[in-house]
Amino acid sequence: MAKDKTTALNEKDGIPEPDSVNTSSIKKLKSIRHQQPSAKDLISDILKGDMTALSRAITIIESKNPQHFEKAHAIIMGCLPHANKSIRIGITGVPGVGKSTFIEAFGTHLTSIGKKVAVLAVDPSSSLTKGSILGDKTRMEDLVKDTNAFIRPSASGDSLGGVARKTRETIILCEAAGFDSIIIETVGVGQSETAVHSMVDFFLLLKLAGAGDELQGIKRGIVEMADLIAINKADGNNLKAAKIAKVEFNRALHLYPKKSSEWQPKVLLCSAIKNEGIEAIWEQIQDYIQRTSNNTYFQKKRNEQNKFWLIQTIEDHLKSNFFNNKEMKLALDKQLQLIEDNKTTPFAAADYLLRM
Amino acid sequence: MAKDKTTALNEKDGIPEPDSVNTSSIKKLKSIRHQQPSAKDLISDILKGDMTALSRAITIIESKNPQHFEKAHAIIMGCLPHANKSIRIGITGVPGVGKSTFIEAFGTHLTSIGKKVAVLAVDPSSSLTKGSILGDKTRMEDLVKDTNAFIRPSASGDSLGGVARKTRETIILCEAAGFDSIIIETVGVGQSETAVHSMVDFFLLLKLAGAGDELQGIKRGIVEMADLIAINKADGNNLKAAKIAKVEFNRALHLYPKKSSEWQPKVLLCSAIKNEGIEAIWEQIQDYIQRTSNNTYFQKKRNEQNKFWLIQTIEDHLKSNFFNNKEMKLALDKQLQLIEDNKTTPFAAADYLLRM
Repeated sequence: MAKDKTTALNEKDGIPEPDSVNTSSIKKLKSIRHQQPSAKDLISDILKGDMTALSRAITIIESKNPQHFEKAHAIIMGCLPHANKSIRIGITGVPGVGKSTFIEAFGTHLTSIGKKVAVLAVDPSSSLTKGSILGDKTRMEDLVKDTNAFIRPSASGDSLGGVARKTRETIILCEAAGFDSIIIETVGVGQSETAVHSMVDFFLLLKLAGAGDELQGIKRGIVEMADLIAINKADGNNLKAAKIAKVEFNRALHLYPKKSSEWQPKVLLCSAIKNEGIEAIWEQIQDYIQRTSNNTYFQKKRNEQNKFWLIQTIEDHLKSNFFNNKEMKLALDKQLQLIEDNKTTPFAAADYLLRM
Repeated sequence: MAKDKTTALNEKDGIPEPDSVNTSSIKKLKSIRHQQPSAKDLISDILKGDMTALSRAITIIESKNPQHFEKAHAIIMGCLPHANKSIRIGITGVPGVGKSTFIEAFGTHLTSIGKKVAVLAVDPSSSLTKGSILGDKTRMEDLVKDTNAFIRPSASGDSLGGVARKTRETIILCEAAGFDSIIIETVGVGQSETAVHSMVDFFLLLKLAGAGDELQGIKRGIVEMADLIAINKADGNNLKAAKIAKVEFNRALHLYPKKSSEWQPKVLLCSAIKNEGIEAIWEQIQDYIQRTSNNTYFQKKRNEQNKFWLIQTIEDHLKSNFFNNKEMKLALDKQLQLIEDNKTTPFAAADYLLRM
């Protein structure tokens, strides 16, 4: 009987058998599999357009493991001299507007005329909902199979700032890999549009006919950001309503002050599912790039975006540094209560907290 | 002859005459005049509704002399328990819309029904233009003479944050002095509307008929903030255009999402110069206060405003602390150039500057 009686099952110790597999070869295999390519190798492969290397590098950039930070930095720096040569297009619209179907049609049109298309997403909520955007790739069947297209779901992250940073860095890698058309998708609610608007050259807003702004949940500011409004699902019984919506949006757009790009945003109809109106949208984008390159707005905007992200990153850091500790959170709550009780003012409270 | 020949006029030294005035009494008088009342005295007089004390205290609050900071703080703290009992109304509109005339009519209506009205202004540009707002008090002839009205031009200051802080603190003093209706005026261009919107209960936008939004220079966001749009100068030949504008603004307002106050902003016509439509505007404001008090939005908004100012003040301080030194400005410029030359990213540059 075995000494150790922790189990009801007792059996005699048999004769030890040799392992049926060669453990030393497994170890060798594992070590090869786990041996990550160096930053140098990844950069070299990315520059050759290797999508596996690109995917791996993006995973390193998105990693929250501090051990990866240095490698991520090296990869970005290696790709940087080869970046900045694409057209970056932001696409937004509320759920149900048909973003995935539109990107499928639009992206396929681009690859059919010889473009290389990368589709990224900014969706800070996707860490909770496990990827609401680009999650359903079944709607992008053709594009997924397209060798000239690269689709990558949104980085997950706690903060919009973090997600946006990773997307911006991913753009650099995609550009270095030779993608000349970068599509950045986001949902048309909340603050992520502002982030996306600050990283793209052209901002496309997808709309539906028939639904008022309040129903579509689109913030007015987003209309103001748009360089083009495309009313999707303009087909069949929807067509008439879409045409009316076009007139209304056109009128609304003319109420806005002239943009510093000197570009007058237009409203177009399209039906992504029927592949109608897609080419006209691409023509608008080309026209925009042409005009803003001529009047130097294109480069000016990119410089301003860079400055924006630089300042934003610093400010985010300063704020989280100040507010994100237990002691400060308690003190802040206490001061807010004192203000509510008319015992201090917001300014006196701020002075107090800053002196802590 | 006089030794000192620096002048062509020569005369003999006469016999010294005694001073024709008693210099010691002048000194005594001067010392009394210069003897500033204590914070305690000022508070006590403010609580009695003494407008001279109120004016003096505001001057101390607006003072940039660090010696006055402690006294200012003491005065604010003394007034605080007696504050927060007024209705705070923000009024904006581009130059030419008739703000001064409107405030004259509106304020006079309020005092005629027993209200005590304080008129303040937020205009950060006034330090340059030497008071573009409320500078021309000739347009408020009646209100200036009204013993139940107190008019104070905008504090001057380098930053909107500074001016806004002083105005918020001035509100406290005015409320302690018994003013139950505080009007805060600002010009309808730039960022000062957001600041004013964050310190008032009700936001009134003055408009003119006939001029498009782009001509009126009003940012769309300001329309979104408005709890009421009043189309001024709706008289004579203007009346027809004003009525058309009313329909247009009403349509525009309905495009916005429902406000969390559950208040549906309206569009009214008025003619400040003919004193028409003023009462209806006041009725709207009373209705708003009633409804938002009932649904607790009124107090909730004030609490949010306090929190906003607290956080804003801290963030402003953190930023200026970081960016406002020569060394950092040089380093920032250098990093921006490196970004433009594709030699670094905004994020790497931010990391570098934060480590400096």
